[in-house]
Amino acid sequence: MSNPTAAMLVIGDEILSGRTQDSNSHYLAGKLTGAGIDLREVRVVADDAAAIGAAVRALSAAFTHVFTSGGIGPTHDDITADAIAAAFGVPIGLREDARALLAARYRAMGVEFNEARQRMARIPEGATLIDNPVSVAPGFSLGNVHVMAGVPEVFRAMLDGLLPRLSSGAAPVSETLHLARPEGEIAGPLAELASAFPALSIGSYPYFEAGRYGTNIVVRGAEAAAVRAAIDRLRDALGGTP
Amino acid sequence: MSNPTAAMLVIGDEILSGRTQDSNSHYLAGKLTGAGIDLREVRVVADDAAAIGAAVRALSAAFTHVFTSGGIGPTHDDITADAIAAAFGVPIGLREDARALLAARYRAMGVEFNEARQRMARIPEGATLIDNPVSVAPGFSLGNVHVMAGVPEVFRAMLDGLLPRLSSGAAPVSETLHLARPEGEIAGPLAELASAFPALSIGSYPYFEAGRYGTNIVVRGAEAAAVRAAIDRLRDALGGTP
Repeated sequence: MSNPTAAMLVIGDEILSGRTQDSNSHYLAGKLTGAGIDLREVRVVADDAAAIGAAVRALSAAFTHVFTSGGIGPTHDDITADAIAAAFGVPIGLREDARALLAARYRAMGVEFNEARQRMARIPEGATLIDNPVSVAPGFSLGNVHVMAGVPEVFRAMLDGLLPRLSSGAAPVSETLHLARPEGEIAGPLAELASAFPALSIGSYPYFEAGRYGTNIVVRGAEAAAVRAAIDRLRDALGGTP
Repeated sequence: MSNPTAAMLVIGDEILSGRTQDSNSHYLAGKLTGAGIDLREVRVVADDAAAIGAAVRALSAAFTHVFTSGGIGPTHDDITADAIAAAFGVPIGLREDARALLAARYRAMGVEFNEARQRMARIPEGATLIDNPVSVAPGFSLGNVHVMAGVPEVFRAMLDGLLPRLSSGAAPVSETLHLARPEGEIAGPLAELASAFPALSIGSYPYFEAGRYGTNIVVRGAEAAAVRAAIDRLRDALGGTP
């Protein structure tokens, strides 16, 4: 498959301490799958410039797109913009259009546009702003790295605006077969199926619910007919019963 | 701080496609914080031997412990044990004590212990088994890499048995100050606080709820008295009102 690839970089001590559960990468995963972009890796790192820099350089070199969330607010622990500028050796400073957007917002709210809030207009040179329809302070794209907020409402709004701008691929088709059987019982037929349809991705997802084992089989591929044929063949191989 | 460090490696296409939301890393994060082990990084990679191998080698070299979840079941896409053995150049084969555990279980259930299920007894040479009180098929520790199941009930049970065996550090103390103010309003006092207490970790976590902005300040450190002093000082700096 020649779909574009992607990685997600989640930045935040609060995720690593267990205080907050990241939901942005799950939201991104669903949106990218729908857009035909293959999410290949997710990383979570601390609010630490060296960790952010090493991760973003590695991911930017390996994948078509990198999406980040977190660390672009007004406080001392919001170091993402500076860390990413440093990682790529790009100067960073207050950017006039971003500053103007923020100044107008705080004026309208009757709130002081203080020094801390002005930090949110620090944008690396050469970046393109990402619109923030929720709370104005923009994200930015620097090369193939798309830097967004950690607050889920803002992350989602930024991503929804950004995605149509990006190169995307053909969205894969997928079908799921629900089986009220443990994985170990169907592994043989499933391995044969995977050999018979090498172009399809065939995943087996066991679960344990209310004291019983079951398995969901997800078949994913570029062509709906092949996906359907694989599902039918597996159902036949299992004797037609779930 | 000289606490042991850790990374989590989540293995599974289903997480990256957005089909399933990973909850194991959040569970692990909370447990490690409680045990005084600093979780420094989380990675999610696909069911791909090269991706698993590269990630586990990098994380094993960088941190005291690496915890993995996913890919140790009976089906063709469960390749974690083989990928990890290959990554460290260790032979892998059916292990007799693991095979006996599984054989006894399937005998008791009156279910065939078929070839697919026997794959779950493939363990790298020199590994220590991790007990699975839910569904018997064991995880394993190979060096500093602890390989566990992806099904959350099983992951949690394995981790609860494993953790007391590991070297741990002093659990940090943390206190949270809830502020009904936007982050931008308190960023100045917060930056001063961070300078005054360099040994503490001071995080600022904004939220947007029911149309209003608020911020939770989390102060974390080794000594309860210092954490308390920092919280008091911030409350004073803000005029005593939340």
